[in-house]
Amino acid sequence: MYLYSNIIGTFVFNQNFQIREKVIFTEKDILSNNEQLSKNEPTDAEKVFMDRFKNIKNLRLEPDEKSIEKVNQVLIGYNEQYHSKNLLLTKLQVRASVSNDLLIIQASSSVQELSKSINLLSKRLREWYSYLLPEVENMIEDNLHFADRISKDEYDRLVRDFNVDITMGSKLSKDDREAIISLANAILQLDKQKQLKERYLETLMKENCPNITEVAGYLTGAKLLTLAGSLRNMVLMPASTIQLLGAEKALFRHMVTKSRSPKHGIIIEHPLLQRVGREDKGKAARALADKILLAAKVDFFKGQFIGERLRKEVEAKFK
Amino acid sequence: MYLYSNIIGTFVFNQNFQIREKVIFTEKDILSNNEQLSKNEPTDAEKVFMDRFKNIKNLRLEPDEKSIEKVNQVLIGYNEQYHSKNLLLTKLQVRASVSNDLLIIQASSSVQELSKSINLLSKRLREWYSYLLPEVENMIEDNLHFADRISKDEYDRLVRDFNVDITMGSKLSKDDREAIISLANAILQLDKQKQLKERYLETLMKENCPNITEVAGYLTGAKLLTLAGSLRNMVLMPASTIQLLGAEKALFRHMVTKSRSPKHGIIIEHPLLQRVGREDKGKAARALADKILLAAKVDFFKGQFIGERLRKEVEAKFK
Repeated sequence: MYLYSNIIGTFVFNQNFQIREKVIFTEKDILSNNEQLSKNEPTDAEKVFMDRFKNIKNLRLEPDEKSIEKVNQVLIGYNEQYHSKNLLLTKLQVRASVSNDLLIIQASSSVQELSKSINLLSKRLREWYSYLLPEVENMIEDNLHFADRISKDEYDRLVRDFNVDITMGSKLSKDDREAIISLANAILQLDKQKQLKERYLETLMKENCPNITEVAGYLTGAKLLTLAGSLRNMVLMPASTIQLLGAEKALFRHMVTKSRSPKHGIIIEHPLLQRVGREDKGKAARALADKILLAAKVDFFKGQFIGERLRKEVEAKFK
Repeated sequence: MYLYSNIIGTFVFNQNFQIREKVIFTEKDILSNNEQLSKNEPTDAEKVFMDRFKNIKNLRLEPDEKSIEKVNQVLIGYNEQYHSKNLLLTKLQVRASVSNDLLIIQASSSVQELSKSINLLSKRLREWYSYLLPEVENMIEDNLHFADRISKDEYDRLVRDFNVDITMGSKLSKDDREAIISLANAILQLDKQKQLKERYLETLMKENCPNITEVAGYLTGAKLLTLAGSLRNMVLMPASTIQLLGAEKALFRHMVTKSRSPKHGIIIEHPLLQRVGREDKGKAARALADKILLAAKVDFFKGQFIGERLRKEVEAKFK
């Protein structure tokens, strides 16, 4: 007797390869059995049979070519089920393909889109509030600080704090003021959501791309990963491409109009590049891109943490 | 004796136009006195003098040319104060210029920007959620309905409601799922803010532009007003310009490349234009723009409510 399982079910054959017993998997069974089969562990049905026929030696079929052929001949009658069950397997394989770098890309994109929304609404808030107290608008540069002060509805305190002598603003009605204040609150809410997403992104990056995170920072690193499309894509890029990720428009313009070629893409957001002088920016961007590529490779192949060494090397070069 | 007030203060002159008494306005005084002066009511200081000299007839100076000249000669010594006090008056005049159509423009712009943010984040939510349960994403068309279902974190119910047999999605970790759910909640929050602003805008429009509101609807009407820049600008436009407000890009393209001229701008959002057939859209847009311009004129000059008649006329034409 032989015990044999495939995507369709578990079968017990006699010596002449005739089916003696069988358990056809339902779609639900496949979900659990697939994992067992792929790990070469007995399926649930096999366990039951192995218990029932426990005095039979070598019950499980060793898949040599000849016996597999015979099994397949017998199971030809079940061919119709292959289609539906293979579709199911494909679905299971699609499932496995949601990797962590895709989650990083979603989180990073959402941070950027939340930023964009916050900026859009903050510009509106400034314009709108300047009807009430125009003198304060350009005294508070930071959008969130501005929204925070406005949300507190402390007109008199703002007048005092910013020494507004006689305002050029209008006394608006209560409804008009409330409309402005609630917009300020909505902006603060959006910022809270952005902070949540940043914490989540930071955790994902530290877990999955610790080396990139150490060298590029989690925000810039995640943006590079997003522009590359995946960690795998990023690893396959030359460093010069990483250096220019996010400068595609300028690069294209350069190629068409022979304008000056861009020296850096969003890598420019890195604190190191903010620090070095104008004439060194191109060189520093290139050196940094080199190290980020190395870091990405280590992260992709799950190598050891060398991020700190990489970061110190590039920092030493440009201090 | 004569009593005389200007931006600098209130003065009491004797018969020979020598100053006998005076009250120089502080900046704070000007705020209250300006209104009284502009209404030709006595200032606070004048009231005090009028009380003190109540037995003197014709105390207040009737401003004939000759006496004004004399007064100005005497007051030449106060010229320095003119600059600062005139600046103050300018500020007061700027104040008065925040008219209700400016508030409408802010409210309408904020509604549009909130919409834009909601759409941006909804697209992100859909892409992100499709990692978890891709089968549901294109079953729910409405972005807010989608966010609402996701925000409730009822995976199993969604699987049941949409007959998802075996999902192609992945079982994400709790943190991953929470990141998605909180984004859905942020979208719903933004929509609440948008609804608040819509109610506020509707109130403003009904109060200040009842005729436009009746003919164009408060949202489309406010958008037209925003594109025009002010109610005054709108009233000065030909109807054909109102018809094309919001189609500036297409109009410019038409002029440069001789592509077909646009037939309508954002007026196309009006339910009437949604209803008429393709070949009638241009004509209907023109007729509607005519009526909206009429409505705007009545609103600008604070005429009587004729909106309902205008609306019925244009509806009768295209039913």
